[in-house]
Amino acid sequence: MFKAIWEFPENIQEALEIGAGITLHNQYENIDHILIAGMGGSAIGGDVVSVLENESLKVPFQVVRGYTCPSWVNENTLVICSSYSGNTEETLSALDHALEKEAQICGITTGGELAERLHSLHKDVVKIPAGLQPRAALAFSFVPMIKLLEKAGIISSSLDDWIQEAVHTLKEARKTYSKDRDTNPVYHLAERVKERIPVIYADSSTLGVAAVRLKGQLAENSKILAWYNELPELNHNEIVGWENNADIFQRLFVLWLMDRDDHERVQHRQEITRTLLQEAGVDQIAISVPGNLFQERFLHMIHYGDWLSYWCAILHGTDPSPVVKIAHLKQELADRK
Amino acid sequence: MFKAIWEFPENIQEALEIGAGITLHNQYENIDHILIAGMGGSAIGGDVVSVLENESLKVPFQVVRGYTCPSWVNENTLVICSSYSGNTEETLSALDHALEKEAQICGITTGGELAERLHSLHKDVVKIPAGLQPRAALAFSFVPMIKLLEKAGIISSSLDDWIQEAVHTLKEARKTYSKDRDTNPVYHLAERVKERIPVIYADSSTLGVAAVRLKGQLAENSKILAWYNELPELNHNEIVGWENNADIFQRLFVLWLMDRDDHERVQHRQEITRTLLQEAGVDQIAISVPGNLFQERFLHMIHYGDWLSYWCAILHGTDPSPVVKIAHLKQELADRK
Repeated sequence: MFKAIWEFPENIQEALEIGAGITLHNQYENIDHILIAGMGGSAIGGDVVSVLENESLKVPFQVVRGYTCPSWVNENTLVICSSYSGNTEETLSALDHALEKEAQICGITTGGELAERLHSLHKDVVKIPAGLQPRAALAFSFVPMIKLLEKAGIISSSLDDWIQEAVHTLKEARKTYSKDRDTNPVYHLAERVKERIPVIYADSSTLGVAAVRLKGQLAENSKILAWYNELPELNHNEIVGWENNADIFQRLFVLWLMDRDDHERVQHRQEITRTLLQEAGVDQIAISVPGNLFQERFLHMIHYGDWLSYWCAILHGTDPSPVVKIAHLKQELADRK
Repeated sequence: MFKAIWEFPENIQEALEIGAGITLHNQYENIDHILIAGMGGSAIGGDVVSVLENESLKVPFQVVRGYTCPSWVNENTLVICSSYSGNTEETLSALDHALEKEAQICGITTGGELAERLHSLHKDVVKIPAGLQPRAALAFSFVPMIKLLEKAGIISSSLDDWIQEAVHTLKEARKTYSKDRDTNPVYHLAERVKERIPVIYADSSTLGVAAVRLKGQLAENSKILAWYNELPELNHNEIVGWENNADIFQRLFVLWLMDRDDHERVQHRQEITRTLLQEAGVDQIAISVPGNLFQERFLHMIHYGDWLSYWCAILHGTDPSPVVKIAHLKQELADRK
């Protein structure tokens, strides 16, 4: 997993080459909405696209983590089936559903049943390299998706304008984040939070998706629970929950993912909420990363979180790579078909 | 709060009358997407509509909890601004944004700045009764929204066919759920979970929104933290988090919200996941409620959860009604304008 996280910038570069090589055989016309059908690491790839292409997406873009498509999917919906293995049963089921609804369909995968079925249906398939854990293949999920949308004429992306600078930033940052010593702020933070449940808070309009990603990485790599919520919504309910059962708070640790592009009023909310949590005796830390463009800082924060999950695993003496419970689930589910 | 929860079925009936009395002054034409701008209790009203009208919604329907509208909002978007007080700053900001984008706009509120501004803009406003806590006004949020969509010619709802039976069911159920004794299963459950962090799991295609609602009610009424996640997604990441820091698990309690309409494969996932959690030493309980139609069971589960949050408050010796931290936040934010 060290190597997989380390190679995130190289993966982005390789994914850019794959993206440049995409040749679509079908035409995508009158697209009124886009649906990403995917789970886990593939779904978060769709979420990343929704953030990076926030300005360029001129039609509703929704990521669906489940077996079916929403009722409004029709022949003017582009459904992108994204499954790293190509054998994710939810995604294959969503494909069936999308076919029934006569949606325009394509896919991103390493192969598997998804590739086979899409090929036999003469649908476009973007092939990505096999051999990674799905969660470590994030670059191969979001970069080709952006390029695919661009080549289909659906978005006009600015990715090429800033991605090389982001790659450079990641290559610099990993030199520090990969060190197992206290001068590495990520390692130091892992020492503080590894025996807690991290509660990750972020502005829904900026780093919310980085919070979702971090929560997932802490589960899969560190094998620890984590939760997340977003501002401003959490100010309308969850904040009041920090009152009773206060003895549990010492086992929680609030991680604030903050960005200078956070909404001005959300910045006030962060300040007031942090004071309220301090009064409740909650340990918390604010994390922000440097960078010129928001997109660059967003990918940087994802990389920061990936390393945090790595170090929490190592400090627990846990191998971050295997996900035994998921393997067990898949086996059990296969036996019940 | 006892009275407010008790009166949920009466609120539905009153909301149906309000819905029947809606006269729209504007025409809503060529609606390609619907956006609900709202926070907290008003936002969950939008989520409830997305569940109850799942089959009848033929265009994308999205609830946005924040200050801005997505980039794809345009003159073919219906934006419903829903704010109980009419003074929610995020919703007023989203209204500004929707106006810039020339969306078709209407509102649901008791009054406040939202009503004033919409009136002066000659937009339709559905007035709902004041004097409740926003979270207790759920019926006044979702019923008028459905009726508004129906009168605007956007959906063809089956609400009238089943809602009276649901009201009857709720009136029967509350007789049991309102009793402060162990023969009331909700009271009994509150005794078991009140000193834990409830972790609420549900199928995203059925009771996911009831899980979100319960999490919010436990925070606002019981003043305890709770989290939620959905199947099948949690099988792709969170499940692996139930491994390290196992000593914290005794302070957690998994509540499974289950329904007979849960996806067949999700039912298998529930079974396998429950076994995995049992092996990890996690306390858990499955909750399901009876009823003929899914919509009826869905509202019943929401009512069950509302009572659970009420009893957790009472057993903590906490008054469920005031939400001091939210009041403090609003005051501080107002001072910083």
